[in-house]
Amino acid sequence: MPAPIVIAIPKGRILSEAVPLLERAGIVPEPAFADADSRALRFTTGRADIDLIRVRAFDVATFVAYGAAHLGIVGSDVLAEFGYPELYAPVDLGIGHCRLSVAEPAAPAAQDDPRGWSHVRIATKYPRLTAAHFADRGVQAECINLNGAMELAPTLGLAPRIVDLVSSGRTLKENGLVEVEVIAKVSSRLIVNRAAFKTRADIVPLVEAFRRAVEVADAV
Amino acid sequence: MPAPIVIAIPKGRILSEAVPLLERAGIVPEPAFADADSRALRFTTGRADIDLIRVRAFDVATFVAYGAAHLGIVGSDVLAEFGYPELYAPVDLGIGHCRLSVAEPAAPAAQDDPRGWSHVRIATKYPRLTAAHFADRGVQAECINLNGAMELAPTLGLAPRIVDLVSSGRTLKENGLVEVEVIAKVSSRLIVNRAAFKTRADIVPLVEAFRRAVEVADAV
Repeated sequence: MPAPIVIAIPKGRILSEAVPLLERAGIVPEPAFADADSRALRFTTGRADIDLIRVRAFDVATFVAYGAAHLGIVGSDVLAEFGYPELYAPVDLGIGHCRLSVAEPAAPAAQDDPRGWSHVRIATKYPRLTAAHFADRGVQAECINLNGAMELAPTLGLAPRIVDLVSSGRTLKENGLVEVEVIAKVSSRLIVNRAAFKTRADIVPLVEAFRRAVEVADAV
Repeated sequence: MPAPIVIAIPKGRILSEAVPLLERAGIVPEPAFADADSRALRFTTGRADIDLIRVRAFDVATFVAYGAAHLGIVGSDVLAEFGYPELYAPVDLGIGHCRLSVAEPAAPAAQDDPRGWSHVRIATKYPRLTAAHFADRGVQAECINLNGAMELAPTLGLAPRIVDLVSSGRTLKENGLVEVEVIAKVSSRLIVNRAAFKTRADIVPLVEAFRRAVEVADAV
């Protein structure tokens, strides 16, 4: 028997949406998997040939790109930020919907017209997507890389604007910010390591199981 | 009255040790500050001239280096990884003790002698410190950047070794790894933005208050 297929699942926001989808695809995780307090990193499932690992959203793409996991569930934001050529993303899972957006204070310190910018300073954990977005219109973005709490940046003078995921907009509002531009619509994708996809025959039916699970969910 | 002094405190591991130290330095945070579930990012204290922000350990140095926070509490590991010249680190706070170490499987796949290496592959969130450590002995380290769960890397074939913080060693043991080399001893430091330190007279007595708070703690 070959080594089990390893699927990387992101901690946090997506996990609760991913579990029902996994189950519809015939993969029932051991109970500890849904326990956010569990220190374990690797979990068994009802299928002896499939294990799960629970890692940070930004690490899912890295684990799959290097072949340490065969498949993964990851936001299209992370997929685009890393741009790993080793990844194949065959299924839009229809979960984890949000937007990658530019936000600024509801009452900006200096009223300026974005069409006149030649340079912007942005706090974000998406430096590559941010730079590419602004470069498209000839604007140079100086990105200050943060891992969280970027909503603090405008008030504290770190950067007048941020680029971050926006879902309900509640966090922005609580910090006096407004969404001024959508860079990309985001949803979670099933990703597969290209080399594993070509060499392991048991991965193709698994991808199909995910595709059917999404169709079932859409039909409900 | 000038704007309040802003102190950046790391979420997680250090927070519970930092609160008693802040209180000994005369800074009593509002109750929500110690509540890990609070969504708030900025907090008042018993002193009207001092606010706290609660950010990720890896972001504390960035907030202070750019002057968005005036002071911060940060591990010497993060300080060394970023190497911001804008930071002054006048006080070792004597909390957050741990080690930055190299670890590998208790039973390595291939027995090799570290003295013979010319190249190593390492999973870590400290790519600069790791590369510098190995470069010192003429070894090139190829770092795979992860934000967490690097203990999974050796088993899954991502990298045969990791560089990570080790405290009790329990997490390593649970994942079949052993600590083979200490790169640096780590403790938390009080950091100050150099420009703020020179221009705001109210920062010097605050640094002294932290220094006394540490001396009191040491004497207990």
